[in-house]
Formats: sequence, structure tokens, C-alpha cells
Amino acid sequence: MTTPTASTISKSFYALIAGVGPGTGRAVALRFARAYPVVLLARKPESYEGIVAEIRRQGGEAVGVSADTSDAASVQSALEVVRREFAGKSDNGEGGKGLGLAVAVYNVGAGFGVKPFLETTVEELDASLAANARGLYNFAQATLPSLLESVPTSPHSPSLIISGATASVRGSARFGLFAAGKFAVRALGQSLAREFGPQGVHVAHVVLDGVIDIPRTKGYTVNEGKEDGKISADAIAESYWHLHTQHRSSFTHELDLRPYVEKF
Amino acid sequence: MTTPTASTISKSFYALIAGVGPGTGRAVALRFARAYPVVLLARKPESYEGIVAEIRRQGGEAVGVSADTSDAASVQSALEVVRREFAGKSDNGEGGKGLGLAVAVYNVGAGFGVKPFLETTVEELDASLAANARGLYNFAQATLPSLLESVPTSPHSPSLIISGATASVRGSARFGLFAAGKFAVRALGQSLAREFGPQGVHVAHVVLDGVIDIPRTKGYTVNEGKEDGKISADAIAESYWHLHTQHRSSFTHELDLRPYVEKF
Amino acid sequence: MTTPTASTISKSFYALIAGVGPGTGRAVALRFARAYPVVLLARKPESYEGIVAEIRRQGGEAVGVSADTSDAASVQSALEVVRREFAGKSDNGEGGKGLGLAVAVYNVGAGFGVKPFLETTVEELDASLAANARGLYNFAQATLPSLLESVPTSPHSPSLIISGATASVRGSARFGLFAAGKFAVRALGQSLAREFGPQGVHVAHVVLDGVIDIPRTKGYTVNEGKEDGKISADAIAESYWHLHTQHRSSFTHELDLRPYVEKF
Amino acid sequence: MTTPTASTISKSFYALIAGVGPGTGRAVALRFARAYPVVLLARKPESYEGIVAEIRRQGGEAVGVSADTSDAASVQSALEVVRREFAGKSDNGEGGKGLGLAVAVYNVGAGFGVKPFLETTVEELDASLAANARGLYNFAQATLPSLLESVPTSPHSPSLIISGATASVRGSARFGLFAAGKFAVRALGQSLAREFGPQGVHVAHVVLDGVIDIPRTKGYTVNEGKEDGKISADAIAESYWHLHTQHRSSFTHELDLRPYVEKF
Repeated sequence: MTTPTASTISKSFYALIAGVGPGTGRAVALRFARAYPVVLLARKPESYEGIVAEIRRQGGEAVGVSADTSDAASVQSALEVVRREFAGKSDNGEGGKGLGLAVAVYNVGAGFGVKPFLETTVEELDASLAANARGLYNFAQATLPSLLESVPTSPHSPSLIISGATASVRGSARFGLFAAGKFAVRALGQSLAREFGPQGVHVAHVVLDGVIDIPRTKGYTVNEGKEDGKISADAIAESYWHLHTQHRSSFTHELDLRPYVEKF
Repeated sequence: MTTPTASTISKSFYALIAGVGPGTGRAVALRFARAYPVVLLARKPESYEGIVAEIRRQGGEAVGVSADTSDAASVQSALEVVRREFAGKSDNGEGGKGLGLAVAVYNVGAGFGVKPFLETTVEELDASLAANARGLYNFAQATLPSLLESVPTSPHSPSLIISGATASVRGSARFGLFAAGKFAVRALGQSLAREFGPQGVHVAHVVLDGVIDIPRTKGYTVNEGKEDGKISADAIAESYWHLHTQHRSSFTHELDLRPYVEKF
Repeated sequence: MTTPTASTISKSFYALIAGVGPGTGRAVALRFARAYPVVLLARKPESYEGIVAEIRRQGGEAVGVSADTSDAASVQSALEVVRREFAGKSDNGEGGKGLGLAVAVYNVGAGFGVKPFLETTVEELDASLAANARGLYNFAQATLPSLLESVPTSPHSPSLIISGATASVRGSARFGLFAAGKFAVRALGQSLAREFGPQGVHVAHVVLDGVIDIPRTKGYTVNEGKEDGKISADAIAESYWHLHTQHRSSFTHELDLRPYVEKF
Repeated sequence: MTTPTASTISKSFYALIAGVGPGTGRAVALRFARAYPVVLLARKPESYEGIVAEIRRQGGEAVGVSADTSDAASVQSALEVVRREFAGKSDNGEGGKGLGLAVAVYNVGAGFGVKPFLETTVEELDASLAANARGLYNFAQATLPSLLESVPTSPHSPSLIISGATASVRGSARFGLFAAGKFAVRALGQSLAREFGPQGVHVAHVVLDGVIDIPRTKGYTVNEGKEDGKISADAIAESYWHLHTQHRSSFTHELDLRPYVEKF
């Protein structure tokens, strides 16, 4: 992997990644840290601290901020920290580093239980809708104004990249509550792409159609245990980087990513 | 229209329609009242009272119950009334009419404002998710056990029919909040179809792709004002009846309905 | 089943069904014969002779004509026979029965071999494209002018109904050649719906997503042999009739039909 | 643009691009020529001669071969030339350069006339099916064996990349014949992805949803003439390169590319 260096890291723009843990979020953070200072959002410091340290060891710039994206106030408060540290100026007028937002990645993964519909509760539905749809809503509200501001100056089109799942496009039996949240995310993403694309912001939705190869899934046997039968988080990060760097005459709104051996 | 008569109305099954007002809900209620006693759910009595009276005048049986489908307790309480009046027995063991549930229609229409994303509020998102997705969740939780019970005896496959919209399959610019709710409904519907279809319950989702010709839309000019340029509520009701009466070897899960002159 | 009688059969309109054999085509023919004189097209007389006799025994009117829909000249020549027998006047000016075309059903089933791509031949591809796509093309060219003529007077919107399959919407492994033909049919159908819908002709495409219960499939075990695990041809015919009778303010363009126990 | 040099061009693998002209094909050829010797297929030498010269001037390796992909014999004959020049050995056993096929791009653009269905001819339909579907069929038959052979040794997953269009996923009014061909291509592509993906070959389909900015479209005013309102061919080429280099645990099967200002 290319090591970020003072000369390759942008001094004008930063990246913001919500939903950082030891899997996709970490890989995406490391990938974007090769080009930008990165801000990592997670509910708990232990989710981002190790990644922040890892990026700094590699010569990159990173900072972590605690936030619960399903809570509008929490996101606003976290973004105030971000603006103070990175952006042009904070809410109380004090100057920051003057950086513009180049890319915001919404990668919040909501835990979910797959079970018979009649054994679920309305609280579980609400939790899925909040973690997925309301989380993206809050994140988009907090970042789109900054992304719009970056349009005239950003070397790549300012981007909002959203992680989806198989359940974003398919309501499987016993996956209804999870799918409800993921379909709602996709709806918002489509609508934002159509509203903000013409203003120069690239909104892309990625259907991660398979099990991602992360610490939590180490024990899972999928695709008959075949090599590369789980999606590499680094490979996801490369596709996110490609999306971010697409020319504005050629935006992808939606792509699927799945192992070569995955049934689809 | 065929007038319901004592001989044509089922003495063993009833229909339940949520989201009854002067438009689609009324037409669906009238259509199903030709075959079943019908229970109408709406938040306010003024939404169902006139329709109940209309059905009774035509020789049908109808009762209205107030309920807010987005509120689980409200739905449960309404369904207790329904069971007391129509079903085999009430929760406290007293006997009712002994009717089984033949068909449940979820036609709850959530008001929505189409506006730029950055002018929306998280409360509006939550309202869309609650009115659409949580409403269907509560309604499905309350009706699926009864529909399952009817499988062995119902002349037609017990059915859960869900009204959707263009926004169920397309997140248009400035329609994101509404689409989030409608996509989530579609996700739930797909998942329920896959879980309960094999148990004999027919779950169908209908994409109403156009403006419906109801009192509220009288003033709208759509499709250049052409005749039949708005969807007839009675025509919708006919398609719902067709869905309900499909043989179990030949279930439709999703169909679209739109005026002949509608762009799609 | 309702028996057609002199009083229930239209004296002004007829139905035309291409692709008639002992399965879906027969069921559709019988269903439409309850309302219209029917013309049956098949490549070989033995495919339609029994059905013509069956319809006549039940009091309906039917005639069979041999035609290969993949051959434009064959279709034109068959349609000349049809016009001479049924329509307003024949090509040489002699009067016929003066009937208008109410509905045309394209139900041509192309045999296909499911096999590894590298074992297929380009002739097999051409055969699939010809039987499916060119067949529909020829049939639509031959029938749309008549359907358009019927718009002002037909009690139901003149209809072109197209039988599709799972392979119309999904290119499964080793099904590529069949899917190529079926996707192409769906493309044509969509395009015709958008061009002719606003002129009053209802073009509908039906995804038959399962094995149909016909003589040829008697020996197939599908869906673990469960009762009603294959699609009833009569049930398909009911849905085709429903499509034909939809009000023009509420056309369905595409619906799926599958057994309650089918995976989807 | 990076200039290809002796050190950056593969000595073991080559790229094959069918459908080369002054637009997308040229851009894709130039992009892949930065990494591989390239073979360009087009019906007429004037379509590839200039591009071959351009690539050679930049230090790359290129050869053009005349072939009509809709004609199986023509493709086989062209591929024999390719094998003689590039591959391990020719059909008559003489040794070539011993190169393996890394990537095959099917970019054949079929001319088409958008017109009312009843003004089209069956010959035009056949031409669309031949140019699009049969062309891909012949190309895939000719290249998949070579791609499979490269699986164990190729640094990137051997890839078959297929150019699609809006008409690949939407049958618009008066576009039926073109859409029939493009839908059929998509069907084949899906089927090939599902059959050959698990064998290590990456089959991807790209929906080019907009007007491409090429010499032929210079005079078109699209998207109100806005800057970058047509898709940059170079940007398409970058996305094709990204698809080719995706890790096999993370294949994209289908992505869309469209200008930021395109309606969708």
C-alpha cells in the first residue's frame, strides 16, 4: 500500500467517514487517508482510536470524534468539533485549518437479528429505521452544505458515498426489518443523487452483496469456504475511491460488489 | 355496481381495510363489501362513518373503528374491538360472530411535503417512516395471525394487500423522505410475501403510479388534463379484488397501475 | 366454468391468441372464448384443432390458423385468413364478419436447451431471438393496426398481452440464450406499452415465474412436489382476462405470477 | 495521461477491444494500452488505423484486425490472426508471442433509427439483434476460452466488459428495436457473469446512460448544453480499467455511468 506522505496529502480538503470499526470503515479510512486528512465518526472511541493511531503511524492525518448518527444533536455536535479542527471556521467564528469537505462516507452498519416476523418487535423495526435511514438523513444534513461549498474548488467531485447491502434491493424472508432500513437508505440516496448531482455533488450507493471479510466474520463459512469468498474490505475501499474520483460527466450512482463465487 | 345481498355476503369471513377516506380506501371497501362484511380503520370517525353508512345502504355490512396504525397500542386496541365484533372470540373469551379474516388491505396514505432536502426536518423523516413503515408493521403484526388461521378454510387465499406509490420504486429529487417510507414498506412487503406465501397467505404490493382520481385531487391537472388521466379508485379496487382471488398456484406479488397516458 | 352462450359472446369483437398448445394457450383461449370468438394461431394444426373443437362443444366460436410467428410472411398470410373470416373486410375487399380485434395474446413458447455457454451454437441463439423477439415483432406488426382501430368502440381497452418467464428478468447461468430472447421480448413490450398506451391500446407483459402445470410438465417435481406448486394455466388465463378488462385509467404493464411456494 | 513505456506494458498479457472507432473504443484502447499490448477489432481498417498509430506514437503496442462481430466466421478468422500475433500459438501450431488474454471489451455500437414501431421493418429488428446480441455471442464464444486460460496467471481477474446503454434497462417509446438488442446483450452478460464468475472470469455490464462526448455527437445539444453534459469517453475508460482491476472478492457486475446533470 502506498504510504501517505506530506506531499500526497491534501492541504485543502478532508474526508469524513461515519461508521468506523475494524472492517469496511477502517479500510475506507486508510484508503482515503492516502489523499486527505480524515475524520472518523463512531459511537465509541474504541472504534476509531486504533485506526487513528494506525493512520498517523503511516504518516497520515486523522482524528476521531464520537457521534451517534441516529441522533441529530449528536451529529451536529460532532460536526462542530470537526469544523473547529478542520474546516474554514467553527460555529463561534474561530478559524480552523480552512479545509473543505471532499468526501463523506456513510458506512453505518446496523446490527440486526434475522428472525420470523411474528417474533420481532416494533422497537426492533424502529431501531433499524433509526440506525439506517435516520442516520443517513442526519449525516447528509450535516455534510451536504459542506460538500456543496467544495464544488467549485475540489479536485474531484465532492462525494457522498453510502454503503448498502443485499437487503437494500431485496426483502428476503425474515430479513424484513433490516431490509426496511436499507431500502429506506437507498431511497434517500437516490433522491439525493437526483437533487444534488446537478449541483455537482456525487451521491453514490454501493450494494455490498456478500459477507465482508472482517474480524467479526472470521468464523463464518460462506461460499463453501472458498478463498476470497468474502468481500475484501480493502477492495471495497478501492471502489469507493474510484467512485470519488469519477469525472462529473460520468458518475456512477449505484454499483454492486460481490465475491466471484457469490450466488446472485 | 353489483349490490351486495344477504346471499352474496360471506357469513364466515370478513375484510379489514386500514386507511379509509374518500378515495382509494372507500372504493376498496365498497368492492370488498360486495363479498364480505368489512371493517374500516381510520384515525378519525369522520373518515369512515360515511362509508359505513353507504355500505349499509347498499345492503352490505360494515363497521368503522378508529385507530392510528403508526401506534402499536392503538392498532391492538382497535383489533380487540374487531375481534369482539367479528372474529371467533374476543380477548376475554367472549364469543363474537366467529368470522375469519379473509383479506387485510393496508392503504394508509401519509401526507408528505415535496421540498428541497436541506429544508426538511428529521421529524418529517420520522413521520414518513412511522406512517408508512411502522404503520404497515403494526398492521401486519395484528393481522397475519388471523390470516394464517384462515388459510385452511378461506375460499380465496387470505391476503395482505399493500398500496404503494411511484415513490415505492423511485427516489425522485425532493421526494426523499416520502420515498424512504415507501421503499421501507415495499421491503417489508417483499419479506412478508417470501415468509408467509409458503404458509398460504398472499402478500401483494401495488405500485400506484399516477395521481388517483379522488376528491382531494379534483383540482389537479395531470397528463394534460386528458380524460381518465388520473387513476380511477374503483379500478384500483377491481385489481385488489383480482389479487385477492388469485389461485395460490399463481400469486402476483407486485403490479403497477397507471393511467394509459402516464409517462413511465 | 361459465359456458359461453350466444348471449355472452361478443358479436363485434374477436380475440387472437398466438402460441396455442395444450397448456397456457389452451386455457387462455377457453377463457377468452367465454366472451369473444377466438382465433388460434399455431405452427401445426394438431396444436389448435382439439382446442377449437373443445370451444365449439362448449358453445363458443373458434377457428384455428397455421402460422409461424417467427416468419413475417407466414404471419401476414395467416392474418389475411383471419381478416377474411372475422374482420371488417379482407385484403381483396370482400366483406367478412365485421369484427374488431379486442385482444391479441402472444404466448409463443420457444423450446430451449439449458447448457453451458461454450456448448451452445450461434444457431441456437438465432433460434431463440427469432422465436421470441422476432415472433413478437411480427405479431405486433400484424395486430397493432387492428387494435388501434378498435379503440373507439371496444368495451374494454384493446390489449396486447405477452407471456414472459423468469428468464425475462433474470439471466441465470446456462440460460443465456433463452434469456436473450426473453429480455428482448420484454424490451419490445415495454416500448410498445409506452408508444401505444397513450393511443388507448393496453400492452401488458406477464412474468410467469415458475413451472406451468401442463401436460408436458406432469412429470416434473418442483417445489418439493407440493400441491399447487406449479402454476395453473387456468389461473394465468384469469389474470390475462383481468389485464384485458382493466380500465384505461389503471393499466398494469407488468405483473408476476408464481406459486405460493416458489422461491423468488 | 501516463505514457506507456517498455517497463509498464505487460509482456505476458494483451487486451482485445471490439468496436473501435473515434469515441469510446478509442479511449478504452488508449487506457488499456498503458498496461497491455492491445488488439483492436472493427469492421473497417479506417476505424482502427489511426488509433493503432496513436498508441504506437505513445510507446504502446497495438494491432488492428478487421472483423464483423455479428458474423461468427469473421470473428473466428480475426481471432486466428490475433492468436498468430499475440497468443501462445496459432491454430496451425506456429508459435506467437505467447501472450494471454487479460481483458476483452465488447463495445460494438449498433446504429439505430428511433421511429414509430409501425414504420420499422423486421430487417431492422434483425439487424439490431445481430449487431448487439449475436455480436456479443460471437465475441464471448471467441474470447472466453482464452480468458479462462488466463485465470491462473493473470495479475488481474481476466475480464469481459460489455458496453450497454439506457436502452439496456429501459424500453422507451419508439426505441423498441434498439432496446430489444440491448436487453438481449444484458441478458447474455448476466448469464455469463453467473456462469464464468465462479471460474474466475469477471463479466461486467456498463449502462452508459447519456450521450457520449465523441466526434459524432459534437453537434448534439444535451442537458441544456451544460459543460460536461455528455459522458467523457476517457472517463468511461477509467471505469472500465477499474472494473478490470477489481479484486475477485469484490466484482461489480453492473454499473451505470451518466453526466451529473443527466435526468434519471
